[in-house]
Amino acid sequence: MRKPFSDQLEERWLRADSMLCVGLDPLPDRLPAGVSVAQFCIDIVDATAELVCAFKPQFAHFAALGAEQELAEIIGYIHSSYPDIPVILDAKRGDVPSTAERYAVEAFERYEADAVTVNPYLGTDSIEPYLQYADRGVIILARTSNEGAGWLQDQGEPVFLRVARAAAQLNRSGNVALVAGATHPQELAQIRSEVQNMPLLVPGVGSQGGDVAKVLAAGLAPHGNGLIINSSRGILYASQTDDYAQAAQAAAFSVVSDIRRALAGLNA
Amino acid sequence: MRKPFSDQLEERWLRADSMLCVGLDPLPDRLPAGVSVAQFCIDIVDATAELVCAFKPQFAHFAALGAEQELAEIIGYIHSSYPDIPVILDAKRGDVPSTAERYAVEAFERYEADAVTVNPYLGTDSIEPYLQYADRGVIILARTSNEGAGWLQDQGEPVFLRVARAAAQLNRSGNVALVAGATHPQELAQIRSEVQNMPLLVPGVGSQGGDVAKVLAAGLAPHGNGLIINSSRGILYASQTDDYAQAAQAAAFSVVSDIRRALAGLNA
Repeated sequence: MRKPFSDQLEERWLRADSMLCVGLDPLPDRLPAGVSVAQFCIDIVDATAELVCAFKPQFAHFAALGAEQELAEIIGYIHSSYPDIPVILDAKRGDVPSTAERYAVEAFERYEADAVTVNPYLGTDSIEPYLQYADRGVIILARTSNEGAGWLQDQGEPVFLRVARAAAQLNRSGNVALVAGATHPQELAQIRSEVQNMPLLVPGVGSQGGDVAKVLAAGLAPHGNGLIINSSRGILYASQTDDYAQAAQAAAFSVVSDIRRALAGLNA
Repeated sequence: MRKPFSDQLEERWLRADSMLCVGLDPLPDRLPAGVSVAQFCIDIVDATAELVCAFKPQFAHFAALGAEQELAEIIGYIHSSYPDIPVILDAKRGDVPSTAERYAVEAFERYEADAVTVNPYLGTDSIEPYLQYADRGVIILARTSNEGAGWLQDQGEPVFLRVARAAAQLNRSGNVALVAGATHPQELAQIRSEVQNMPLLVPGVGSQGGDVAKVLAAGLAPHGNGLIINSSRGILYASQTDDYAQAAQAAAFSVVSDIRRALAGLNA
C-alpha cells in the first residue's frame, strides 16, 4: 500500500522542517562540463535532500533532450534513496478525458510520480482521470507565476478563483493541490481563503522575484505549513563548475533559512 | 528552406480535395493482435494518406507506452513517404516562457513536427517561444470538444473569444491556428468571425458526435477550406482485426465524402 501524497507531504514538512521544493530543470548549456543530465540531477538530489519537502522534475527539460530514460532513472533514484520525499512530475497536462487517462498512466504508472501538475483549461471533466488515483497528488494550475498569467487567469469570476473553488470540490480523496505563483501574493491569499489547508505549490521565488516572507504571510495554511515553495534555477545553477552540488546545497539552505525566518516572524 | 505550415496546408487542401485530418491515438488494448504501435500507425498512414490534409499523432498515447522512439519513427515515415502532408503534434503544451522554449525544441527540433497544439491558460507570453519558429504552425486551444469545456472557456468575455482575438494578433508570421471543437458549432462560428481565414483544427466529429455539415456551415473560411477536421478513433478502430487498414481507409473515405457533400450543399 502506497502512502498517499498528502500524508507524505505532511510528514515531510515536519521531519525536514522545510517547505522548500527543488525543481529539476536540466539545461544542457548550463550543466558543468562532462556531467550528464542524470548525474547532475542525482548530485543535486543528494546535496539538497535533507532540506526539501519534495522534488519536482520538469518534463519539458527532459523531453527536449530525449531524456525520458534519465527522467525515469532520477525518479527511481529518489524513491529508493529517499523514500519519504514525494516526487512531483511537473508536466502541466491538459486534454479531453479519454486522453487524460493516458497522461495519468504516463505520470503515475510509467514514471511512478507521487503527484502531477495539470492544466484546468479543458474543465473539471479533464481532471477526473487523474483523481481516480486516490493515493497520488493532482496539482491544478490556478495562478501561475509568469508575467502574462493574468491575461486569462484574471478573466471573469476571476478564472483562478473559479479553479480554486472547483479544486476544493474535486478534493473528495484529499489528493488535490493548486499552483499559486509567488509573484502575486494577493492572489495567493485569495486562493488560500478558498481552500483552507489544501497544499499550494508556489513557483516564482528566486530568479522570478517572488518574496518568501510575502508568500508565507499570504499562503500559510490555517493548520501551519501547507506550502511547497519551489526553486529551480536559483539552486541548480548556483555554480556551473565542479562545486555545483555544494553551491546548490548552500543556495537551498539559504531559501530554507529565509522560510524559517519568515515563519518565526509570523509567529512572533 | 522548409515550406511554412500554412502553405503546406493550403496546397494539401487543394491537392487532396480534403479537410480531413487523421489522428494517430494508438491504444494497446485496441490494436489488432500481433501488430506493433509503429506498424499500426504506419499502416493507417499508408491507407489514408491520399484522403487527408494532415496527420495528428497525439502525444499521450505514445508517452503512456514509453513509445517516444516509435513517435519519432512515425513522423519520420510521414515526412519521407508523404512530404507534402503536414504533421501536427497534439501535445497541448502550456508552461512559463523559459519552459515553453524547451517544449518548442521538443516539438520542432526533436520530433520535427510541422505544427504543435498549445494551451493558452498561461497567457500569450507562454506562446511566444513557439511563434519564433515562423515556418511551423502553432495551434492554440480556443474551444475544445469535451463536455466540460465551457466551464472555463465560456467564462468572462468569454475566454475562448479572448483567445481567438489574441491569436489573430499573435499571427504576425501567418503561422497561428486555433482548436475549435465540432461539438459546439455556434462557438465555432463566433471564432471564425474573429479570425478570418485562419486555419481551425476541429476535433469531435465521429465518436464525439460533432456533425460535419454543421461544422462546415459554421467554420468554413471566407476564402474556402480553412478547416482541419480531425477524426481519430472512428478511423483507427473501424475494425480491430486483420482488415484494419482497409476499414480505416473506408471510414476515412466516408468522412471525406460527408465533407464534400456538405461543401456542395453550401455552394448550391
